[in-house]
Amino acid sequence: MGGTPLKQIKIGIFGLGTVGGGVVEQLRENRELLKARTGTDLVILKAVVANPSKPRPFDLGPIEVSGDPNFILDDPEIDVVIELMGGVTLAKEILLRSFVSGKTVITANKALLAECAEEVFEAAYEHHALLGFEAAVAGAIPVIRVIKEGLAGDRITEVSGIINGTANYILTSMSKKGEDFQKALGKAQEKGYAEADPTFDVEGVDTAHKLLVLMCIAFGGIFDFKELYTEGITKIEPVDIEIAAGFGYVIKLLGKAKEVGGKVEGRVHPTLVPEDQMLASVDGAFNAVKLSGNFSGPIVSYGRGAGARPTASAVVADLVSLVRQRESETSPVPPLSLMSEKLKHRKLMPMAEVLSEYYLRFSVEDKVGVLAELTRVLGSHNISIASMIQRSRSEEGGPVFVVFFTHEALERDVVEALKTLDQLPFIAQPTRMIRVDPS
Amino acid sequence: MGGTPLKQIKIGIFGLGTVGGGVVEQLRENRELLKARTGTDLVILKAVVANPSKPRPFDLGPIEVSGDPNFILDDPEIDVVIELMGGVTLAKEILLRSFVSGKTVITANKALLAECAEEVFEAAYEHHALLGFEAAVAGAIPVIRVIKEGLAGDRITEVSGIINGTANYILTSMSKKGEDFQKALGKAQEKGYAEADPTFDVEGVDTAHKLLVLMCIAFGGIFDFKELYTEGITKIEPVDIEIAAGFGYVIKLLGKAKEVGGKVEGRVHPTLVPEDQMLASVDGAFNAVKLSGNFSGPIVSYGRGAGARPTASAVVADLVSLVRQRESETSPVPPLSLMSEKLKHRKLMPMAEVLSEYYLRFSVEDKVGVLAELTRVLGSHNISIASMIQRSRSEEGGPVFVVFFTHEALERDVVEALKTLDQLPFIAQPTRMIRVDPS
Repeated sequence: MGGTPLKQIKIGIFGLGTVGGGVVEQLRENRELLKARTGTDLVILKAVVANPSKPRPFDLGPIEVSGDPNFILDDPEIDVVIELMGGVTLAKEILLRSFVSGKTVITANKALLAECAEEVFEAAYEHHALLGFEAAVAGAIPVIRVIKEGLAGDRITEVSGIINGTANYILTSMSKKGEDFQKALGKAQEKGYAEADPTFDVEGVDTAHKLLVLMCIAFGGIFDFKELYTEGITKIEPVDIEIAAGFGYVIKLLGKAKEVGGKVEGRVHPTLVPEDQMLASVDGAFNAVKLSGNFSGPIVSYGRGAGARPTASAVVADLVSLVRQRESETSPVPPLSLMSEKLKHRKLMPMAEVLSEYYLRFSVEDKVGVLAELTRVLGSHNISIASMIQRSRSEEGGPVFVVFFTHEALERDVVEALKTLDQLPFIAQPTRMIRVDPS
Repeated sequence: MGGTPLKQIKIGIFGLGTVGGGVVEQLRENRELLKARTGTDLVILKAVVANPSKPRPFDLGPIEVSGDPNFILDDPEIDVVIELMGGVTLAKEILLRSFVSGKTVITANKALLAECAEEVFEAAYEHHALLGFEAAVAGAIPVIRVIKEGLAGDRITEVSGIINGTANYILTSMSKKGEDFQKALGKAQEKGYAEADPTFDVEGVDTAHKLLVLMCIAFGGIFDFKELYTEGITKIEPVDIEIAAGFGYVIKLLGKAKEVGGKVEGRVHPTLVPEDQMLASVDGAFNAVKLSGNFSGPIVSYGRGAGARPTASAVVADLVSLVRQRESETSPVPPLSLMSEKLKHRKLMPMAEVLSEYYLRFSVEDKVGVLAELTRVLGSHNISIASMIQRSRSEEGGPVFVVFFTHEALERDVVEALKTLDQLPFIAQPTRMIRVDPS
């Protein structure tokens, strides 16, 4: 290279698992390119991990490893902290202390950002922190950048997407191979697409964490994670996937938020998506996010939502972006895109007020008058029917399925109607309700 | 609002056509939001247009209109210049003079950026100009931001996409309705999707302009537009679309560039894309861009590629981004992402050296020995056949179609083989060659 040596940016990293290893490798493999793009040399000097003596499947090079967070946090030489440990309590302490000491912070921790949104973002603004969290949502897809900068001039009206690869992998297997949930989950675990405890993924919690982070940026405010309606995929049965397919729909675990007339609606649940929509063709462990702006129209971004290298790509993109800002001693892009005095707390619309179309699968005794009673009760709750099919089960004389697709109805009315219907004597099993998203 | 008034950012705009009108409306409609995101008040004070007395279909508000470029360029009060006139000569003068006088510049002019890449980008670097050109490529899709910032840590290996809505609209009509090129073009013109002179769109020139701009950023250098292989869609016939569909392909006008082993290959031509690929499902006037990084893997972005509001969305996003940078008196993101001393001129790989799979449709007399001769000549040029079909034309005794799908072959070999074959006596019409992209 020759000439004056470049300024070194000193990095401390928390966590050297899958993603941490990817970051170490990316900074090594792309080092010259990163020098050309930032005018600095980005070097990880220290790592803090739970078990410092554990062997790692990658070369640590000059990185010193410790089990004590203060090894990084108390070192005034460290410019940038990368937090990839997960968990909430210690991670929050790391972020807050780093803000106070003027360290630039990059995190992939969606649980922390969603569950402690108020505390973390308010502290970031208070200390004028440089904070990047692109890796927290949708792996390599630069969705946070697209919201904050690509749609910087738009009023965002919708954020939705498939942002949990594990759930999508399971639903794709169920859909393509006719497997039931337990079998598809087992296979996903064998292949490393699902963890031993898959609760966060299959119950929608991880999707909800990520959606909440996107909502804070998209709609300019802090939302309360506990207000976000969250429903997982564990109750989806092959028969629902099959019936949905017959009507031209694919079942996806969707996170979706909209702002209409100043009211924000946000929810995570299995959703029937028309098969000709972009989101319907997102298979396996891939993620996709749809954003709509009042001028841009819809923008869909698709890519790998997890894994060592794709997630590292998002971490290092933040690193480049924040080092460019740090070296110019400014923060031209505020953490949530808004200037701090405009930051506000926002309430979510209650789920009961949401309007949606619905797929309702009733298990009923096969006898005269049942259909009339079902439609009467639905009608009395302002629910009108768009289409219907009736299917016998395989066993003779057993209950039959009656499936209704409804026109748009109020969630409250549907919940009330099902509460009434499920107590009727001819209902053989609790009714399966899945929301339909025709847009 | 109350409190101290916000600093006003004074904007001069060149061109008040479709996109210019969109920008005027967006700054008005989203004014309060833009104040919250930039901490400034973005106001268009002056416009320069070819015909100042022409009535406009939108409210000009306080904008003063003139036909003289100096009305804006000589005004030291103007902070930001937005160039939406198109054309090369005057637009270049506007950009270069604005750089010199320290004005921030936003342009949607892909012809200028591609054909004068060296002059414009070198001047921008020389004057440390704040230059935005997101609106030059793929309308509302923030593809330039995704390359410069979303993939800031990645070595980019591929940029490809459907980036001309007119050509895609025509190909989609041909594909869905079996129309021939002329009819589909006529309909596109009626509906306003194609201009009276559609040359740039249907001959691939506009796609090539946009691809070249993306290549400069993705591969870190200045390329010569004249080196970029460009082929349009005017020779695509319904029969090719039909045969391709039979093999599971859709024909799209693709711009594609790759860097492999330090060599850059770039080309624009009709391409057979497998129908299960994301790009294959991009229909009508929509655009989509696929990017691959060495860590991120593939990222596909999809959205509206043209139109007043989507293109305005990209212009205003640049405006927010550059005003944030301007107000912090820095340029954290250089125009082509690289630091200036790393900027270099790069050569494109000659088309003859490109490897591709090919669709070859021969029109031949229906007689014995023809097939043997075709395969012999192809084989002698190192071209091996992956699959083949033969189809009679409707007229009895007329020429028949023989279609080969080849394995990967060198473009030079294919061109040479076709040169030889097309002179053989049994060939009834020049052979139709379309490249196939299985990835």
